[in-house]
Amino acid sequence: MSEDDGAVGGLFGGIFGRGGIGAETGDRAWLRALLDAEAALARAHARVGLVPAEHAAAITAACAPENFDAEALGAAAAGAGNPVVPLVAELTGQVGGDAARRIHYGATSQDIMDTAAMLVSRRAGAVVTGHAGSAAERLAALADEHRETVMAGRTLLQQALPTTFGLVAAGWLAGLEGSARHLADVLERRAAAQLGGAAGTLASLGADGPAVVAAFADEVGLAQPELPWHTERGRVADVAAALGRVCGAAGKAAGDVVLLAQTEVGEVEEVAGAGVGGSSTLPHKRNPIAAVSAAACAEQAPGLVSTLFAAQVQQHQRAAGPWHAEWPALSRLLKATGSAAAWLDTSLERLVVRPGAMRANLAATGGFPMAERVTTDLAPELGRAQAHERVRGACAEAARTGRDLAEVLAAHLDGLRDRAEVDALLDPAGYLGSAPAMVEQALAGHRAATIESNGGRTG
Amino acid sequence: MSEDDGAVGGLFGGIFGRGGIGAETGDRAWLRALLDAEAALARAHARVGLVPAEHAAAITAACAPENFDAEALGAAAAGAGNPVVPLVAELTGQVGGDAARRIHYGATSQDIMDTAAMLVSRRAGAVVTGHAGSAAERLAALADEHRETVMAGRTLLQQALPTTFGLVAAGWLAGLEGSARHLADVLERRAAAQLGGAAGTLASLGADGPAVVAAFADEVGLAQPELPWHTERGRVADVAAALGRVCGAAGKAAGDVVLLAQTEVGEVEEVAGAGVGGSSTLPHKRNPIAAVSAAACAEQAPGLVSTLFAAQVQQHQRAAGPWHAEWPALSRLLKATGSAAAWLDTSLERLVVRPGAMRANLAATGGFPMAERVTTDLAPELGRAQAHERVRGACAEAARTGRDLAEVLAAHLDGLRDRAEVDALLDPAGYLGSAPAMVEQALAGHRAATIESNGGRTG
Amino acid sequence: MSEDDGAVGGLFGGIFGRGGIGAETGDRAWLRALLDAEAALARAHARVGLVPAEHAAAITAACAPENFDAEALGAAAAGAGNPVVPLVAELTGQVGGDAARRIHYGATSQDIMDTAAMLVSRRAGAVVTGHAGSAAERLAALADEHRETVMAGRTLLQQALPTTFGLVAAGWLAGLEGSARHLADVLERRAAAQLGGAAGTLASLGADGPAVVAAFADEVGLAQPELPWHTERGRVADVAAALGRVCGAAGKAAGDVVLLAQTEVGEVEEVAGAGVGGSSTLPHKRNPIAAVSAAACAEQAPGLVSTLFAAQVQQHQRAAGPWHAEWPALSRLLKATGSAAAWLDTSLERLVVRPGAMRANLAATGGFPMAERVTTDLAPELGRAQAHERVRGACAEAARTGRDLAEVLAAHLDGLRDRAEVDALLDPAGYLGSAPAMVEQALAGHRAATIESNGGRTG
Amino acid sequence: MSEDDGAVGGLFGGIFGRGGIGAETGDRAWLRALLDAEAALARAHARVGLVPAEHAAAITAACAPENFDAEALGAAAAGAGNPVVPLVAELTGQVGGDAARRIHYGATSQDIMDTAAMLVSRRAGAVVTGHAGSAAERLAALADEHRETVMAGRTLLQQALPTTFGLVAAGWLAGLEGSARHLADVLERRAAAQLGGAAGTLASLGADGPAVVAAFADEVGLAQPELPWHTERGRVADVAAALGRVCGAAGKAAGDVVLLAQTEVGEVEEVAGAGVGGSSTLPHKRNPIAAVSAAACAEQAPGLVSTLFAAQVQQHQRAAGPWHAEWPALSRLLKATGSAAAWLDTSLERLVVRPGAMRANLAATGGFPMAERVTTDLAPELGRAQAHERVRGACAEAARTGRDLAEVLAAHLDGLRDRAEVDALLDPAGYLGSAPAMVEQALAGHRAATIESNGGRTG
Repeated sequence: MSEDDGAVGGLFGGIFGRGGIGAETGDRAWLRALLDAEAALARAHARVGLVPAEHAAAITAACAPENFDAEALGAAAAGAGNPVVPLVAELTGQVGGDAARRIHYGATSQDIMDTAAMLVSRRAGAVVTGHAGSAAERLAALADEHRETVMAGRTLLQQALPTTFGLVAAGWLAGLEGSARHLADVLERRAAAQLGGAAGTLASLGADGPAVVAAFADEVGLAQPELPWHTERGRVADVAAALGRVCGAAGKAAGDVVLLAQTEVGEVEEVAGAGVGGSSTLPHKRNPIAAVSAAACAEQAPGLVSTLFAAQVQQHQRAAGPWHAEWPALSRLLKATGSAAAWLDTSLERLVVRPGAMRANLAATGGFPMAERVTTDLAPELGRAQAHERVRGACAEAARTGRDLAEVLAAHLDGLRDRAEVDALLDPAGYLGSAPAMVEQALAGHRAATIESNGGRTG
Repeated sequence: MSEDDGAVGGLFGGIFGRGGIGAETGDRAWLRALLDAEAALARAHARVGLVPAEHAAAITAACAPENFDAEALGAAAAGAGNPVVPLVAELTGQVGGDAARRIHYGATSQDIMDTAAMLVSRRAGAVVTGHAGSAAERLAALADEHRETVMAGRTLLQQALPTTFGLVAAGWLAGLEGSARHLADVLERRAAAQLGGAAGTLASLGADGPAVVAAFADEVGLAQPELPWHTERGRVADVAAALGRVCGAAGKAAGDVVLLAQTEVGEVEEVAGAGVGGSSTLPHKRNPIAAVSAAACAEQAPGLVSTLFAAQVQQHQRAAGPWHAEWPALSRLLKATGSAAAWLDTSLERLVVRPGAMRANLAATGGFPMAERVTTDLAPELGRAQAHERVRGACAEAARTGRDLAEVLAAHLDGLRDRAEVDALLDPAGYLGSAPAMVEQALAGHRAATIESNGGRTG
Repeated sequence: MSEDDGAVGGLFGGIFGRGGIGAETGDRAWLRALLDAEAALARAHARVGLVPAEHAAAITAACAPENFDAEALGAAAAGAGNPVVPLVAELTGQVGGDAARRIHYGATSQDIMDTAAMLVSRRAGAVVTGHAGSAAERLAALADEHRETVMAGRTLLQQALPTTFGLVAAGWLAGLEGSARHLADVLERRAAAQLGGAAGTLASLGADGPAVVAAFADEVGLAQPELPWHTERGRVADVAAALGRVCGAAGKAAGDVVLLAQTEVGEVEEVAGAGVGGSSTLPHKRNPIAAVSAAACAEQAPGLVSTLFAAQVQQHQRAAGPWHAEWPALSRLLKATGSAAAWLDTSLERLVVRPGAMRANLAATGGFPMAERVTTDLAPELGRAQAHERVRGACAEAARTGRDLAEVLAAHLDGLRDRAEVDALLDPAGYLGSAPAMVEQALAGHRAATIESNGGRTG
Repeated sequence: MSEDDGAVGGLFGGIFGRGGIGAETGDRAWLRALLDAEAALARAHARVGLVPAEHAAAITAACAPENFDAEALGAAAAGAGNPVVPLVAELTGQVGGDAARRIHYGATSQDIMDTAAMLVSRRAGAVVTGHAGSAAERLAALADEHRETVMAGRTLLQQALPTTFGLVAAGWLAGLEGSARHLADVLERRAAAQLGGAAGTLASLGADGPAVVAAFADEVGLAQPELPWHTERGRVADVAAALGRVCGAAGKAAGDVVLLAQTEVGEVEEVAGAGVGGSSTLPHKRNPIAAVSAAACAEQAPGLVSTLFAAQVQQHQRAAGPWHAEWPALSRLLKATGSAAAWLDTSLERLVVRPGAMRANLAATGGFPMAERVTTDLAPELGRAQAHERVRGACAEAARTGRDLAEVLAAHLDGLRDRAEVDALLDPAGYLGSAPAMVEQALAGHRAATIESNGGRTG
């Protein structure tokens, strides 16, 4: 879409049109989709016997984007209210002769626009899931490698109990892969062809209407709708929401990378080639540019999602505004989502994990997060209330005096636990609960998803 | 939720808390859900053997909303950052003794809040689908009755080709029922229990973590999650989007009712009892109050959906703001959606259809919309180009002179078609294409959905 | 901005990049603004004495957009996180020698980006207010011409009391002109230069900081800020809100045009040249394409406004995402607003008003809206209650029997009012209240605004 | 508004109805405003001579919220589509006699609702600015005290150059105070009375219309509008945007508090009484509950702002949905903003600043951020290029070897700068640029604002 053609390049295209998404959301991609729809319609006519097969072949041959001038069509679209009217006129002229007669036959402009929007969504969606899939592979590897790499779990940005970086990565993986799978599923089930004619009744196709619709959906490779959906826009909302979820998952992971990469935290770092993020005079500064860019792309989503949800309220049999309003919003949302996924993938590619910093940060809180564990350990002997009281007393003393918690606890628990036992209880690596098991479960889910995706959708 | 408790009543509750939704989104509903979560957790502990069954029973018995003071808990929540902390303290005090010891054991506040939010969503969601189901029944009846009631199809609010009111109603039905079914499905699959403990590792449950999670999900009647989803909020986004789709579908139908009820259109009317919408001194004025209210409720959705999509970006293991931000947004979105569905149901209950006005409005355009059909009819004899030329000439003359199109056409087609044939061709009832078939298909889908819904989800 | 460069052309540019706005929001416009900022900074340095005047002149001379390749800069921006870093490198290379040494001196990338964003906003804003001003002139002419053209006032899309089309146009005028004036005012007061250096302290400028800031603001022609506003984004929010108000005003007027142009209402019509909106075979169909397009552009605004309002929450001294997120959102909002205003202007240029249809529509409600007036007229004689009762009885009878209200009323009021008096009371032209006076007031406001605008901002 | 009455209490009211805002946005506040509008209208009638003064006095006396049942009115509102219709009926009954005759005379429901909405906005807005003003005082004190407290300036969450906490606080102050002042200004200028009658023409007031409007605005204490603004909603959008800016400013400051309070940063801390935020067993954990709550409230704003901006598109002379949609959205936005401001005030009240941690964090980057300053210092002697080369070489060596930068630099600059000189150059306290001056400027602005506010608006 020319609106956003810049995504393929241009001053901001490097950031907001990252990866392969620009090419699938620009003018050329829309033009191709519009022409694919017209060609598929012609072939559908031929299958039903409304036009000779050679006419359909001639039309299909003419439906090549390079034969059309997006600028000129766009200018003419201002008169018609959409680019299909001038496109059909131009196509008719190019095909000529008898074959041209039934171009666009039985269709209204919205049939072609909506079908094209769904084709663009499918194709751009594949780019999104491709980038997300690559990022998911990296996350799975991180989860696998770091399943027992201890780090602070943080709630409200405060250190709480320990977790592992593997589980953190598994959480990002679950969010990203889950949302990408959902997107693929929505595009599979809900991206439908549109064919209803001027008022949604298929009137000019007479009794052939249903057969043409079926053949059209088959030819264009989209789901066959039960009814024309000219003003029933749940499909568009579903696509929008699925894209918004991918942005949410990418934004969550990217946001955590930015937080973990803070100078004072230093648990991860984006390390890239010369001129990217780093600085020779500021060696401590390693800007997580890729994560920042992912976040910036993802932040476009909620507003665009709301535009598309608001646009569901479409008047009568063709809307006077809300339908048109979908085009730039959908195109931009696809682009933002693809870019967010691509940037997250880049961020993970660059990511260097610092287990030492993770352990050091956790150690800086002096074992206090582990105190709960000592209480649990003592409870069978002392009863829970007394156990709690003993531990609390030691914690309070250590906090007040600044002395080492293990030392103070060992003193308070003299006769119950020796220093080595206290040290063991305070070791965060021993208090990870189900973290490693959860990582395993997430990885199993990932492997299953990958197999299904290879065997099913893409194989 | 007290935020919106007014929905059950209050100055604006009659409009924005329509039907049964207020009771399922107010303070009492949230309190009940929070207590249900704590009680289910206790029973899960018992099933796994962590506490005696009689303790779980005692806790469950104490978990009755009427035993708690929402005002006091809400005030105390300001200190803790959420209402679970004071609720657990209060519950512990009420239960007392040994049974109280393991209340909330292994859980963090977010475990209970998130589980409660999903319970509230399920219960409020059932109200939404109930209202939508009732509206769908009315729409199915309208579609059935009016499958051949001819009316103008309108594009960009201009009359285009004829359609039938049955197909219009079927379109509303497909949108509303489809979105309600989607909502029910999302709540079935995606409304999950939450249990992860302080940092999402289930650390304090030791090796029992996974078993407790499974038992908890079962006891509370929600899906079992693969991982804790403390900061992976795709589930909340899915619920939000599904609600936003119902609002979109309700808003679309309500908007069309308002348009069709315009004084100058008059094709439908909301007829209600005394004092509702009508006026003795302004008998022409029949305010479609129910449709207007449905639209007003539905218009809350896009903004709330965007808030919940933005809130997906949650930091680390518990978010510092975005998580809390979900509570009012979700509660309000549930309420807006339930009210929109309830108002649409009311609008349809009141709806009187005026087939005479439909036919008269269509007739006012003098047959021009049907001209395309005459061309098609003549094409085999004259060739398409000449057929088109003949018809266009007649149309131009009729438009210029204001004479009756049938008369002019009959004159232009002298020897080809007589007046009776022209009249037949210009009869909109003969040019409905697949409209009746589409209605049939939509009704078949509706019947299947109803059966499935009775047999499956609710039977 | 390349993101939206298509606005200048491209497949959807004719609709979503209407009028002059494309050229002021595309890559070229952004590049020019970035270079203007660098050049102004150099001249500011010279004014303060930090660099020789000839160096500043050399830098200024090099700051010509045609010397730079937006594509290449955009690609390089992916590495740096913004296009300023490669732009400065390229500019430095082009200037060369001693003059190049202090290019960008004391500035950080955000200083240049933010300053450029405000320049783009000013320039694109002038296009917006230009289109809005043209539309306002047309509206003023309509208000003037039709100040006593009676039409139905409509509430909830039902005819209520009469109003005049002049007052309707005056209402559109007040909304559009008021919002455009507000936009101009915000851009005048709030579009500020940005200069704070790497951490917002102007550290590398030493004691010269404040003087350089003052000179920079003056050279670049923007307001001088009290503090650097790197992460205090109220200015951006103000611009966004002002744009969103113009969209709201344009969308309101456009929506009303669409409603008034409905086939069944027919009170206005967009009449344009061949191939625009009309159809020879469907002479009744006159698609209000311009109003529809204005609505579609305006509907982009609420979502984009929300994105920019959400982006106010920026971390520390430079944000990790929200700042970058502003660029496409702001650029698109400017473009949508300019296009909405341009389309509304086009719609009004094409607008043909049908006073006959207005009167006929009003007459179709048979005088009932005027009944209130009869009551008021009778009240002094009969007392309000009895007057009301008499009129209500007549209305009910007329509604029930379908007889002419005037006739029935005259019969009911026998001895009180004769038929001529009743007819006069039921004449809507006599019950317009302050409508003409309000039109006059609105036009006086418009004239004052025009004079102020000519003398002040643009003269 | 009962919708949000819970704000005054209820399960979530402690968090989302913080401070005084609940009482000014609940049912009681709306009821009072509606009655104030009716009473002011009656007094306006009296001033113009349409009713006797004693009737106006009787009506005014009856307009007391305690005389009305919000629940009953709300229930009845479902029939009328708004609560004014039953309120007027009830008020008429309560007043009785002749005085009751002209209650609501010349007005339509929307006149009263809109006027009440503006009264509620003014009163709730005063609560917002009150909380913001208190927070601003605290920020001014922090800025004053810490104007030279050195800390790391952070860009993309990475340490960059030093700044002072005073300047950080001054930035928060400028944002908060600026937005609060803007809100007060908008409410002063733009919160207008509404009076137009059934179709916006003031028809039933005859020639008295304009005089009644003027008297009404004066009596109700709101601005007098140039035209009725029934469907020109720029005023509502302005109020919404101004509230959204306060939320943005509060959210920005709160977000920074959360980041600075991170366990690993520890530069600020919220210290509150027992049971708030802290924990005896987790002494390192000091949840910044107030800042988190401020953020959660502020995050409601963008979605609500978008709802109100979308609602600007209102049909004809009274909208069929968008107008009604404003009520809950505006009420909630007022509440969210007041709560966000109140929570930020609480956060600042609790805030303990740790200058030692600030300095230690900055020291941890080993002086690298100051390297730029050494280059600048050497440039006059060596030329910029060579100076840069020397410093870069030293930085690279220090980074590679991990040796102290000062030591390495002193060695590299042997003969140019001795160790003491290098230490001085690397002292961040010496490289604060205009930070202290900026603080001074911000405080001067604050003092001026305070004086103006005391003398003008509130004195």
